[in-house]
Amino acid sequence: MTKAVAKRLKALRQRMSNKGIDVALFWDPDNQYYLSGFRAISYSRPIVYLVYKDKTHYIIPELERDHASQMAEVDDFFIYHEKLQDHDKDTNYLQPLNHIMDDFPKEHVLGVEMDIVPASAYQRLIEKGFDIKDVGEDVIDLRSVKNEEEIYWLEQAGYLSDIALEASFHHVRAGMSELEFDSYGDQQLLETASDEYPDLIIGYENWTCSGIERSSMPHLYSSTRRFEQNDVVVHSRQVWINNYRAENERTFLIGNPTKEQKKCLALAIEAQRVGMEAVKPGVKAKDVDIASYKVFEEAGYGEYIQHRTGHGLGLSEHEEPYLRFDNDLVLQEGMCYTIEPGIYVPGAGGFRHSDTVIVTKDGCRSITTYPRELEDMLFPNH
Amino acid sequence: MTKAVAKRLKALRQRMSNKGIDVALFWDPDNQYYLSGFRAISYSRPIVYLVYKDKTHYIIPELERDHASQMAEVDDFFIYHEKLQDHDKDTNYLQPLNHIMDDFPKEHVLGVEMDIVPASAYQRLIEKGFDIKDVGEDVIDLRSVKNEEEIYWLEQAGYLSDIALEASFHHVRAGMSELEFDSYGDQQLLETASDEYPDLIIGYENWTCSGIERSSMPHLYSSTRRFEQNDVVVHSRQVWINNYRAENERTFLIGNPTKEQKKCLALAIEAQRVGMEAVKPGVKAKDVDIASYKVFEEAGYGEYIQHRTGHGLGLSEHEEPYLRFDNDLVLQEGMCYTIEPGIYVPGAGGFRHSDTVIVTKDGCRSITTYPRELEDMLFPNH
Repeated sequence: MTKAVAKRLKALRQRMSNKGIDVALFWDPDNQYYLSGFRAISYSRPIVYLVYKDKTHYIIPELERDHASQMAEVDDFFIYHEKLQDHDKDTNYLQPLNHIMDDFPKEHVLGVEMDIVPASAYQRLIEKGFDIKDVGEDVIDLRSVKNEEEIYWLEQAGYLSDIALEASFHHVRAGMSELEFDSYGDQQLLETASDEYPDLIIGYENWTCSGIERSSMPHLYSSTRRFEQNDVVVHSRQVWINNYRAENERTFLIGNPTKEQKKCLALAIEAQRVGMEAVKPGVKAKDVDIASYKVFEEAGYGEYIQHRTGHGLGLSEHEEPYLRFDNDLVLQEGMCYTIEPGIYVPGAGGFRHSDTVIVTKDGCRSITTYPRELEDMLFPNH
Repeated sequence: MTKAVAKRLKALRQRMSNKGIDVALFWDPDNQYYLSGFRAISYSRPIVYLVYKDKTHYIIPELERDHASQMAEVDDFFIYHEKLQDHDKDTNYLQPLNHIMDDFPKEHVLGVEMDIVPASAYQRLIEKGFDIKDVGEDVIDLRSVKNEEEIYWLEQAGYLSDIALEASFHHVRAGMSELEFDSYGDQQLLETASDEYPDLIIGYENWTCSGIERSSMPHLYSSTRRFEQNDVVVHSRQVWINNYRAENERTFLIGNPTKEQKKCLALAIEAQRVGMEAVKPGVKAKDVDIASYKVFEEAGYGEYIQHRTGHGLGLSEHEEPYLRFDNDLVLQEGMCYTIEPGIYVPGAGGFRHSDTVIVTKDGCRSITTYPRELEDMLFPNH
């Protein structure tokens, strides 16, 4: 077992003990990875990770056995099968789960991720008569502060995302589709990663929304829509390497933007700068959100905000804690957040940059560094 | 509302009525899309779709409001907010969910997707005292038989996946990384899609596992590992267009494969052929699985099978029903399956093709057509 996983399990068990939890059962793929070192690509066959006071178990489909054995140092695997030859063994994940629970003393207290575990499994735990407590919030807490190795991988993800943005922006022109714009970045990213990071897993996601109508909706898949002359475009990219993610988003203007569009983008850039400046240990998550919010509000654009200023980042696409107006969480060194205040203005479009920052001893450091000033975001029509 | 969505809602309501369900609540993104026409890209902010006997509601975060209003013709939206200005409105999804439930008569019976709805929400429904029944199995049933329009999009996904495979295979050589191999297909796919399918959303996923050790594990992310001389490689690709997916997988051999490797790949190809031949209306899902299984079993390779012969395909990466030895489901015209029997042989590697087939009146038709014979799968070392 890696030192990092051992340390996390120790911290988890301390929290389990404080809450009187005897066994914690994890369904969330990212929590499983964090606490065991193993992650699958697909969970249509459910995988459950069990953490006891003194041992760990995996309930896992046969096709993941070798991979899990290689990645996770677990005390026991309970395999379920799906081929005719094994018809007399366990053939779905609820069977080993039942056997295991039948061996628990009746007074056992179970910890589960209440926001994750599906009702069908939860109902079984209830029917067995066990007391159940939430353990999801504890792993959110643990995951929120990154160690040195995690920060290293976040930085590499940030570096690769910068390279991808540079390649996409190198080719920007009216007439190319959103997905083609993305693909230049993808290709450069994979080429660079293949050269510099041998034998590692790497991935990415893009969401590019072009034109006034599409950019005004914060979350859309990239499409085959072609950039038009004088378009506003919000390009979002997440890159992950060795499971850790960075987010890098830029809003840019093609051709001759309106005065209003330039003003909105300048405001979003300023709101992001102010948000970043607010980040340091000791301030609350809400302080960062409100700092960015006020930039829009004071300019008369408060009503065009649709979302919080940022989210935690690490193993998941969006992870808690969130930078929201109502979150009293105190920031600590080693936390990782996106800073991405945005406005969505009828007739003008959407305006939002996102960068990924690590909280440092006395402020924060952005691990995504692609240029973000207004003059960097203006491109000719051809 | 589109005709297709209206028809699905009618069929769902018939099933709800048969089960005595008054309101069905959906958490699954693909079920929501199927029953409303709206799909978001991210669900870290939960979205709930409610189907009543005579109306539909969405509980939705503010940033999805415009997109959802455009895509889904719903009778009412319950918006929750996350900016300071709206601190006195609902600020998380459980608040509107609570208001709505408080208006239900106490004797209401609720339908939920028991394998999807998270325990935290389920616990609230229980505490309110409602009877709860599973409605997930009903939507699985409805989704399993595709209509003409769905089959059209599945076919386009199949076509694009073929184009991607052709581009990747055009460049195959020892020395390129798994991710570079993927990227040739990605780029060609996006270029073709941008030309031929304007203003549509398109995406893809690849999992390429090269070398004996990696190919022996059925499910791994593509990595920066470089193909070596005489490698065995399992390349998997899913492409989706307008939300519908096709899967296209090929195992190929670089350089001078061993006799054993050629034999294993020939067996996997034969098992797939036999599986496809078994598919027709009236046979059971298990018959297809067992037909493929027997090819391996009779050649003495049964113990190296790790997974079922195939899964349903449509909106989700893997969807029910599954082609498993224990599934008595009777196949119907319009169903869509992957046929992908595989073996994973110590010292030799993994061997699995996957194609996507539509069940026709008297057999099946593959919507992925990239060459699949042994001689098509042999590539020189350089």
